[in-house]
Amino acid sequence: MSNEKGFHMTPEDFRHYGRAVVDWIADYYERIESFPVLSQVQPGQIRGSLPPSPPLHGEAFENILQDMETLILPGVTHWQSPNFFAFFPANASGPAILGELLSAGLGIQGMLWATSPACTELETHVLDWLVDMLDLPSKFKSTGSGGGVIQDSASSASLCALLAARERATDFGSNQHGCDGRLVAYASTQAHSSIEKAVKIAGLGRQNLRLIEVDNRFALRPDALARQIEQDRHAGLIPCFVCATVGTTSSNAIDPLPEIGRICRNAGIWFHVDAAMSGTAALCPEYRYIHAGIGLADSYCFNPHKWMFTNFDCDCFYVADRGSLIKTLSVLPEYLRNKATESGAVIDYRDWHIPLGRRFRSLKLWFVIRYYGIEGLRFHIRRHVELAQDFARWVEESHRFEIAAPAPLNLVCFRHRGGDEINRKLLDRINRSGKLYLTHTTLNDRITLRLCVGQTHTEERHMQRARKTIEEIAAALE
Amino acid sequence: MSNEKGFHMTPEDFRHYGRAVVDWIADYYERIESFPVLSQVQPGQIRGSLPPSPPLHGEAFENILQDMETLILPGVTHWQSPNFFAFFPANASGPAILGELLSAGLGIQGMLWATSPACTELETHVLDWLVDMLDLPSKFKSTGSGGGVIQDSASSASLCALLAARERATDFGSNQHGCDGRLVAYASTQAHSSIEKAVKIAGLGRQNLRLIEVDNRFALRPDALARQIEQDRHAGLIPCFVCATVGTTSSNAIDPLPEIGRICRNAGIWFHVDAAMSGTAALCPEYRYIHAGIGLADSYCFNPHKWMFTNFDCDCFYVADRGSLIKTLSVLPEYLRNKATESGAVIDYRDWHIPLGRRFRSLKLWFVIRYYGIEGLRFHIRRHVELAQDFARWVEESHRFEIAAPAPLNLVCFRHRGGDEINRKLLDRINRSGKLYLTHTTLNDRITLRLCVGQTHTEERHMQRARKTIEEIAAALE
Repeated sequence: MSNEKGFHMTPEDFRHYGRAVVDWIADYYERIESFPVLSQVQPGQIRGSLPPSPPLHGEAFENILQDMETLILPGVTHWQSPNFFAFFPANASGPAILGELLSAGLGIQGMLWATSPACTELETHVLDWLVDMLDLPSKFKSTGSGGGVIQDSASSASLCALLAARERATDFGSNQHGCDGRLVAYASTQAHSSIEKAVKIAGLGRQNLRLIEVDNRFALRPDALARQIEQDRHAGLIPCFVCATVGTTSSNAIDPLPEIGRICRNAGIWFHVDAAMSGTAALCPEYRYIHAGIGLADSYCFNPHKWMFTNFDCDCFYVADRGSLIKTLSVLPEYLRNKATESGAVIDYRDWHIPLGRRFRSLKLWFVIRYYGIEGLRFHIRRHVELAQDFARWVEESHRFEIAAPAPLNLVCFRHRGGDEINRKLLDRINRSGKLYLTHTTLNDRITLRLCVGQTHTEERHMQRARKTIEEIAAALE
Repeated sequence: MSNEKGFHMTPEDFRHYGRAVVDWIADYYERIESFPVLSQVQPGQIRGSLPPSPPLHGEAFENILQDMETLILPGVTHWQSPNFFAFFPANASGPAILGELLSAGLGIQGMLWATSPACTELETHVLDWLVDMLDLPSKFKSTGSGGGVIQDSASSASLCALLAARERATDFGSNQHGCDGRLVAYASTQAHSSIEKAVKIAGLGRQNLRLIEVDNRFALRPDALARQIEQDRHAGLIPCFVCATVGTTSSNAIDPLPEIGRICRNAGIWFHVDAAMSGTAALCPEYRYIHAGIGLADSYCFNPHKWMFTNFDCDCFYVADRGSLIKTLSVLPEYLRNKATESGAVIDYRDWHIPLGRRFRSLKLWFVIRYYGIEGLRFHIRRHVELAQDFARWVEESHRFEIAAPAPLNLVCFRHRGGDEINRKLLDRINRSGKLYLTHTTLNDRITLRLCVGQTHTEERHMQRARKTIEEIAAALE
């Protein structure tokens, strides 16, 4: 690979191999339905096919690209397959992939405004756009006291919300003093596991997380929350953080934000709303009811990388009072000081999340919003909900299966009426068939299958095939 | 943009626009020296050029790509310019960019082994390769009790190390109880600001971070560390974490790992080593002395995204005892349970860092290592050190400038002999010239300029021009 510039790829080679990679990706999407959705390899199989030692001398790019086919693809679970109905969609799209490519090509760091003003200002601008697009409260806009920032994931966003809450509750003065075991956080039993992870990371201690019981729709019970907060206060503890979920991971339950918000407001507790997957639905006016009460929230996040055609990572995290977040996370050493920061006229996003460095992630989001337009995004979101609702109706009309939870949007929780054993076997055989990929959860202590619609290219024919496969495998098990 | 598949980009369009973006990037690199390295825009200027509202209808991709030129580039600070000598290099390369593109195209999630076995196994394999490539202790390999994982940044890696240390020191039992104000962490006054950020996040409290004094080479003084630990113990506190730096941000100082490691070993304190930029130098046997004593470390990180031609984000974080890390961060809800995890035969990287979701980041690292080969990487690292050492000699021989700190590798700290005022002006004028970009720090309370060599395409001619520009601007100021 050596040439007059050492071992670097020449511009001509970059053009040549870049086209080859673009074509490889286009080809991949054209044949994606030919692969089993869930990778069928055994533990260690991929690793066993790799050379034990790194190469001393450079290899031809052609060989490396060829190995994508022979060594990597067998170990890939095809998240972009239209037959992927597991977890959450993580749906990518052409404009998002090309936005990510441009971000990698520019190779800039957006840790400070000064280190690339466009990286900061485009992010601020697009996140303000999204406040309007989802009809969120204007307090989340950067033009007021709040603002939005791209985080890698809702896990990190929830952690940052909790840190700001911890800071506000204790007035540590930039965390001068550590936790003292008295701070308490709240979420429902159905909240995402990242809340427990955040509580552990932030040093509150797992015992100071209260998982509040849910109602028969798997939504947090405000009366139980209020009671628990009262008990904790009496015990001398300091309730500091409540996380409500709009669209829980297990069943897409929507916690009652107005009631929870009022409890938090009255008790002076930080109110965070996690709408990781479902928030995207609010692009459509008819689904905006999911955010009723959001005006009471101190912070909010949703993930365009889950259901808005933007490849991972892209979580949009909003705070109503950016000062509290910045105060919590800011550290300013001499080597990061600069005139723009000192002027106070700019945002330095390094103070809005855990890492210091940051990619130009708003590019892909900007590309998606512009390429699809609001109407284009709505078209697909509505289509996904429609396909999921069709599936729910099919379950309801089936003698074999039953609905396990309300299905307000694109996630259907269902189960075979025959009990846990057959549902476990059914899931295993469906996934081993390679024809589609589902995951499971437990609801009311019973194994439940989850079918989540939202892959970019999922159409009616994939849903038909999914129903047929599920039906056939179930029949064979009975 | 609407077609029979809705508003999605067609495969044909993806091929077409993908090539256009690849060409755009190749063109960008060919003309990168024509831009001012540091963006010259004013706060708000980029944002002011963007439309206030998001588009209702989709736009042509050609228009979006055109806006990269007209709206975005003026606000870009060109980190990939061969005249970029600020902060750290963040050097990208053709194979890394194309690896990132493939990762975006596959769009898979590597949170669990099962969600894409290749994502986990390639990462484990390549991180084991790097242990050999840097001649690190074999305890950091996954084949023993340890292992490596890709994190977004050294900030996150240090936080994870601190969390594992906190867990080990208190034996909370998976953080059952929170922090109680007695845990203490240690680093030198020259350690990266992310250590302070981590201490705040983890709830130890800023007051429980001890910044230990340094010697005349800006390296941590082991005697001062030992004394402080002793004092804290006597005060009833619990020393739990020491971070040593191999190549500090300000001046590239190398803390004495053998002495610090022995202190930690004797006191039962977690010993973390942060070699974010400089670790890459250990690819070359002649620079491996920087890691002397690393055998005593509990954890270690370095960033291929700083100096190893791999675009951000890619920090390699190693632990000697992976059990302690996993125990700290693991939360296993029903919806993430699966056979492979329960078999114990696989790694689930979600338990190795803060976020749950993760990109296929090992692809770009694998591409870089294979395309360059070990010899190719060594060639360029040696060249960068040589260019930096030439610059240091030029400073030493100059009557205007002086060296401000030892320059062991690719970072030269220097200053004009005329004092802070002229150095501040000099820095400002250099950066406003657009010809090169330097940043500053303070050493011994004096403003110091930092020139860091490591951009992918920096050659002798760029160094000559840098010297000439610095000299001319200084002369004009005198």
